[in-house]
Amino acid sequence: MIYNSFKSIDGGICAASGFKASGTYCGIKRPANDTPDKKHKNDICLFASDVECNTAAVYTQNKVKGAPLLVTKANLEKSGNKAIAAIVNSKNANTCNADGVEKAQAMCDLVAKEMNIPSEKVIVSSTGVIGQILPIEPIESAVPTLVKELCYNKNAAAATAIMTTDTVKKEYAVEFEIGGVKCKLGGMAKGSGMIHPNMATTLNFITTDCAVSAEMLQKALSETVKITYNCLSVDGDTSTNDMVVLMANGLAFNDEIDAEGEEYNIFKAALTEVMANLTRMLAKDGEGATKLIECICSGAKDLDTAITVAKSVVCSTLFKAAIFGEDANWGRVLCAIGYADAEFDINAVDVCLKSEYGKIEVCKNGSGVDFSEEKAAEILKSDEIYVLINLNGGDAEATAWGCDLTYDYVKINGDYRT
Amino acid sequence: MIYNSFKSIDGGICAASGFKASGTYCGIKRPANDTPDKKHKNDICLFASDVECNTAAVYTQNKVKGAPLLVTKANLEKSGNKAIAAIVNSKNANTCNADGVEKAQAMCDLVAKEMNIPSEKVIVSSTGVIGQILPIEPIESAVPTLVKELCYNKNAAAATAIMTTDTVKKEYAVEFEIGGVKCKLGGMAKGSGMIHPNMATTLNFITTDCAVSAEMLQKALSETVKITYNCLSVDGDTSTNDMVVLMANGLAFNDEIDAEGEEYNIFKAALTEVMANLTRMLAKDGEGATKLIECICSGAKDLDTAITVAKSVVCSTLFKAAIFGEDANWGRVLCAIGYADAEFDINAVDVCLKSEYGKIEVCKNGSGVDFSEEKAAEILKSDEIYVLINLNGGDAEATAWGCDLTYDYVKINGDYRT
Repeated sequence: MIYNSFKSIDGGICAASGFKASGTYCGIKRPANDTPDKKHKNDICLFASDVECNTAAVYTQNKVKGAPLLVTKANLEKSGNKAIAAIVNSKNANTCNADGVEKAQAMCDLVAKEMNIPSEKVIVSSTGVIGQILPIEPIESAVPTLVKELCYNKNAAAATAIMTTDTVKKEYAVEFEIGGVKCKLGGMAKGSGMIHPNMATTLNFITTDCAVSAEMLQKALSETVKITYNCLSVDGDTSTNDMVVLMANGLAFNDEIDAEGEEYNIFKAALTEVMANLTRMLAKDGEGATKLIECICSGAKDLDTAITVAKSVVCSTLFKAAIFGEDANWGRVLCAIGYADAEFDINAVDVCLKSEYGKIEVCKNGSGVDFSEEKAAEILKSDEIYVLINLNGGDAEATAWGCDLTYDYVKINGDYRT
Repeated sequence: MIYNSFKSIDGGICAASGFKASGTYCGIKRPANDTPDKKHKNDICLFASDVECNTAAVYTQNKVKGAPLLVTKANLEKSGNKAIAAIVNSKNANTCNADGVEKAQAMCDLVAKEMNIPSEKVIVSSTGVIGQILPIEPIESAVPTLVKELCYNKNAAAATAIMTTDTVKKEYAVEFEIGGVKCKLGGMAKGSGMIHPNMATTLNFITTDCAVSAEMLQKALSETVKITYNCLSVDGDTSTNDMVVLMANGLAFNDEIDAEGEEYNIFKAALTEVMANLTRMLAKDGEGATKLIECICSGAKDLDTAITVAKSVVCSTLFKAAIFGEDANWGRVLCAIGYADAEFDINAVDVCLKSEYGKIEVCKNGSGVDFSEEKAAEILKSDEIYVLINLNGGDAEATAWGCDLTYDYVKINGDYRT
């Protein structure tokens, strides 16, 4: 997986021309005097484009869908996939509440009124505890401030406002050229637990000034989600509020990409690079994680086989615990490969473990090989562990991302609501 | 789920007439002076019937299959599903080893020679670390002792010999009547981690003196596994060595059950009761577990829907951690119901939490209801938690068993091989 074919730049969701953001504390998270460091944490943000954007989105496939997803989906249908602004809160998912849709709609209406735009061109998204009534009053008070403070460099204020148990904000952006015109694409993401995306992951917002038709935008997003966010698992739990939104305002003034071809491929490569980097950040900041696990499955007969096998390994609770313990228990890798729902010859499988401290083969043709436990222990000391699987049965390859299972994961999730 | 329709009796795998067992320490586990309590732990056992048995078996669906499974399967094919004895070791799975089949075959040959029976009538099974060469010498030394010590009341010596990270041995037996003839059926099981059975679970052996044809025996076992062992999950990892074996020696002298009907139903009910109780014991002794989680899904349109939904809940890492923390985070139950791969109306779902300390409804028609957090906290103090789900869409019901996710699970699995 190549993470840096393009020039990476600062700015997150404000990297692309014409996108501005703001973030503040409105009172959904605990007040400052009740936090360990006595500081307010941002809990709501707004971002907007100077002009209307073609917009693509993918949503969770969980049958339980957060009210904000339902409202966003309806809005994009009504507007013909056009959006101008997005409002996002953390700490409360507004899911499984009888008044959820009403509240999510109210959030759009508040932004629409304050910005003087149609309500159906506002995207709404929430993350946090499921099944607690969302208080609307703090949001009513915050929206005028959020609109007033919208600014072309406040991406960090927005990226921190969407954090829940995340320990770091996640932003990434790149620069690329379409037909000689410089374009930018950047994004922010949040998510640390309840991460096992299916069609989309926890909240992710991506903006670009590249001109792309709504149809090609959706196609690029769906294809890229499959090999990035959908290959991520922290704990096997597919959230109710997963959502990825991609907004393109066209302010780079390239000729609009409206069909497949070289320019579409460049755009998709840039999108993949940003999404893969954000995915990797999400895995590395998984709840309680001390180590990133990146599993690369090659030699598969097709892409789906490679994805299924790689994802099975990063999802294995037993392997995740072994990596936390820096134990080269490769039998658990083989076990997870073996129960992956895919077709391949288990007796042809090779496995290597790798980190910046070296690389060892632990399994050849489905059976163990002698290896130095000392060298394995040295390799596993790293905080970024690579598991390289070769199925020796074709040319397809995929990467999946996960993290180790630690005491802190249990601690965080044994006591999340309080 | 009724656990006690029949009279429960002592004796485990020796409860049925004509079954004897033995267990000893041969040197695969650590020697006594290297254990915390300076005591040898049994690591190998043998059990046998006085006469040949009709035998049914189910195996893991993991593509990686332990060598003992391959040998047992081949033996039962060769013998026409007849077996007399079974040898089982712990601490080494004899899986992913180039010489695995040869060693598993040698174990059968050793028993066959010492007991003067055909090698294909010996079942072999192993559990423990994957990918370490199985030392055959200690087994060679132990087999004569095991045969000499076979005894009609040494079920506990066998049940302890198959334990790995289990903290307690698991045995259960019942008495029932077929056509006025008293029959007995009992079993032993082991397993604490890498438990997410698919077609079978980790090692389980069941013996009965009831006369049942090989065909009806296999039918009863397959049907019962589906609603007992296959509804168990400790960590989502389907083992490479899962195996359930059911041996019937006919020494109760009832008319052989060779077709469906009332007697088959009684036999299957007895088998279900033993397997459900063993399954429950496995869940309660899951690695690091402090609480049993039993999820009963009713109101489903069919059995598969009920199983899928109930199992999704007991598999949720987030919910398991919440139960450890005694946090009534029912949103995580809804989330897990929502991503279950089954058809039902999420807006009709009701959820209750229950224990010996009381019962509360937490969700009605897919939305949260007000409940007393104090009462919920009280209920969750129990070490046996019931999650009652009603899909309100039919008459089918199923139970799934799991346990909480704790610091100790991480500790045990961060450092399993050493």
